[in-house]
Amino acid sequence: MTHHTTDHTHDMNATSWVESANGHPDFPVQNLPFGVFSTDGEDARGGVAIGDYVLDLRNVLDGDLIEDDRDLLHYASFATLNDFFAMPGGPSELRAKLFAALTDESYKAAMEVCLVPMADVQMHLPFQIHDYTDFYTGIHHAVNIGSLFRPDNPLLPNYKHVPIGYHGRSSSICVSGTDVKRPTGQQKPAEEGGTPEFGPSKRLDYELEMAIWVGQGNDLGDPIPVGEAEQHIAGISILNDWSARDIQAWEYQPLGPFLAKNFASTVSPWVVTMDALAPFRTAQPARAEGDPEPLPYLQHDMSHAAFGIQMEVLITTPKMREAGAEPHRLSHGPMTAMYWTAAQLIAHHSVGGCNMQPGDLLGTGTLTSGEDGGEGSLIELTEGGKKTISLPNGEERKFLEDGDEVIMRAYAEKDGYARIGMGECRATIVG
Amino acid sequence: MTHHTTDHTHDMNATSWVESANGHPDFPVQNLPFGVFSTDGEDARGGVAIGDYVLDLRNVLDGDLIEDDRDLLHYASFATLNDFFAMPGGPSELRAKLFAALTDESYKAAMEVCLVPMADVQMHLPFQIHDYTDFYTGIHHAVNIGSLFRPDNPLLPNYKHVPIGYHGRSSSICVSGTDVKRPTGQQKPAEEGGTPEFGPSKRLDYELEMAIWVGQGNDLGDPIPVGEAEQHIAGISILNDWSARDIQAWEYQPLGPFLAKNFASTVSPWVVTMDALAPFRTAQPARAEGDPEPLPYLQHDMSHAAFGIQMEVLITTPKMREAGAEPHRLSHGPMTAMYWTAAQLIAHHSVGGCNMQPGDLLGTGTLTSGEDGGEGSLIELTEGGKKTISLPNGEERKFLEDGDEVIMRAYAEKDGYARIGMGECRATIVG
Repeated sequence: MTHHTTDHTHDMNATSWVESANGHPDFPVQNLPFGVFSTDGEDARGGVAIGDYVLDLRNVLDGDLIEDDRDLLHYASFATLNDFFAMPGGPSELRAKLFAALTDESYKAAMEVCLVPMADVQMHLPFQIHDYTDFYTGIHHAVNIGSLFRPDNPLLPNYKHVPIGYHGRSSSICVSGTDVKRPTGQQKPAEEGGTPEFGPSKRLDYELEMAIWVGQGNDLGDPIPVGEAEQHIAGISILNDWSARDIQAWEYQPLGPFLAKNFASTVSPWVVTMDALAPFRTAQPARAEGDPEPLPYLQHDMSHAAFGIQMEVLITTPKMREAGAEPHRLSHGPMTAMYWTAAQLIAHHSVGGCNMQPGDLLGTGTLTSGEDGGEGSLIELTEGGKKTISLPNGEERKFLEDGDEVIMRAYAEKDGYARIGMGECRATIVG
Repeated sequence: MTHHTTDHTHDMNATSWVESANGHPDFPVQNLPFGVFSTDGEDARGGVAIGDYVLDLRNVLDGDLIEDDRDLLHYASFATLNDFFAMPGGPSELRAKLFAALTDESYKAAMEVCLVPMADVQMHLPFQIHDYTDFYTGIHHAVNIGSLFRPDNPLLPNYKHVPIGYHGRSSSICVSGTDVKRPTGQQKPAEEGGTPEFGPSKRLDYELEMAIWVGQGNDLGDPIPVGEAEQHIAGISILNDWSARDIQAWEYQPLGPFLAKNFASTVSPWVVTMDALAPFRTAQPARAEGDPEPLPYLQHDMSHAAFGIQMEVLITTPKMREAGAEPHRLSHGPMTAMYWTAAQLIAHHSVGGCNMQPGDLLGTGTLTSGEDGGEGSLIELTEGGKKTISLPNGEERKFLEDGDEVIMRAYAEKDGYARIGMGECRATIVG
């Protein structure tokens, strides 16, 4: 099946005996994302989000509650999902079986003991992440940032030919909910030729990105053709690629960002599968009239190559939380702001022979919509720190302050289908 | 003990009952580097190089041949050495015990059955490498490369303040002896604004580097002070950071090298420990009169902060091998060409809170000596491909051709001490 073919698991009229799932904004029975969780005193293990609950797959396995002749539940209940998502067709098959069980009342009596309230679980990273690559596919972001760092040539000549990316740090990727410590480091001297400043970053920023997880890998020296690339995607989550702009400005020449990005990246815990996203696949819109044709290794059918996912980023400050205020939305926009498709990213990443492994994380780069209110980072919203953002309670921000919590959300909706969501990616800055 | 204190294990008069070890250029009993090996049909396991043999640590463990109340042999005999090198003091203690056994004739009868001829083993990567960072500490290399890419400002203003580095790709790191497939990719258009070329790299290069392995890690948010940084180093190997110069020139702006570097990196298999290197520690010489003082977090006692290691790179072509010719040395130089010390690299890497993990690999960056014949890459030797190198048999090279084998060697020697070596880092280019 191609990844935009819909089937009975996308039927908007399907309902579950898990009642909180019906009409749930993120986790109706049409979604069924995989993740890793633990409860007090228990080992981490695989689960599936359904309504306000996590379905404990180890308990489903131990109870022999569904037919499973491929040992899918065995792998899906591990403390990391690398082996499970490396199984060709495995996640699709298990999602379909769980859909059948969760929509069939006759399973309720045996299976409802496997439901753990989401409020009671601790989520973990879904994969052991071997390598993390961050791309730069948000063309509006690239133009905005380029204008700040290089006013004379914001979009470099290679941008519309090469999916620009760089290797990131995998050890410091944290699951949503983990506090982020403000990094200390060298910052650009105030005067040309001066001594750099050193101290806690004064220009700490978020970046609104999506995370693309690699499922099946490839051997070293054996590139993944663009037409097969989607078979190597496990699913999608939300990614906040925190950035210390003052550290970045000083260190990034000539080899790219390093300490400005490696103190933390935060990812949402649920892997929303390509199957769940099938109804929301859409044409890749970012290429403009007159743009160069991609080289042949990047050419593929783009009629359903993009993801119709909406993203938003919100903030709460300590004062807002004290006053019980709602989070304030800073910006929002679509994932279709990507100039390159997910398939193109994988084809490009491997074209020189680089081997991808299950659990590799590919960041899209900051996705800025190109419209007012669609800026995916504070450096764009404040035009490099020159403008101030006013919050509803009168507080002002240029960059993040200690105690600020950044919340990212993403979801897909379309007439005729149940809305599905990725959940949240959130973290608080600590000093 | 500090890492430059010598003891009885450095006594040049010590000899082993493994006779090939005595006077061995790389692996006398004063070295005892750790590695991971396998023989036909057997699992990979830990071993120690001694003369022309590998001492099979699993057999030493199974035979209960040395006293080991800390389970050191248990961890050292795993298929990766991550857990072993994470044990505080563990590698030092085991090296001392093995030194005692290998220099004591009374152990010979029981232990010699644990020796496997090096010619019969397959070596493996010594660690599961979680993250790979490549630095840019070779100041002469930085000036040479900078002159090619940016003739107007070869050494950027940050170079003498910030240990410049970037995250590399860990999945494609191979152990010495693994063929390297020439990468295919986009190359800079011949004319400004033109369409990039696409095909196998025509400017494939090696980079002569040393690998610094992380032993004990640190927690996220908890930087490693420069004065404690050496305690986090497991040891040293040789690294060839292959580079496709035509791909690099096109893709590297603005986020650094990506596909130009991620098709393969080759590392030598033996981890030469900080203990073995103690006699060869020397002053850090690269800082020149008038250079800026390092910021306080990078200041430490540099009187023994560098490694007195000599490196060389050699080539054989298919025709040379057919004719039985010796490898031809292309360049040689000292590891002291590093502008920053190993301790400074670790302190810098973690100063913003980044967590290092056992088995992380830090490349020094290409080490060029600054003297003729000391260029650590072909792009320097050929001045960006403008000059031709003549080999002794009349063949010529600008960059590497299919079938070329690149061999790197490194060793430390000093009056009054036995010479020790890292062995070889070699690989052949295949089309």
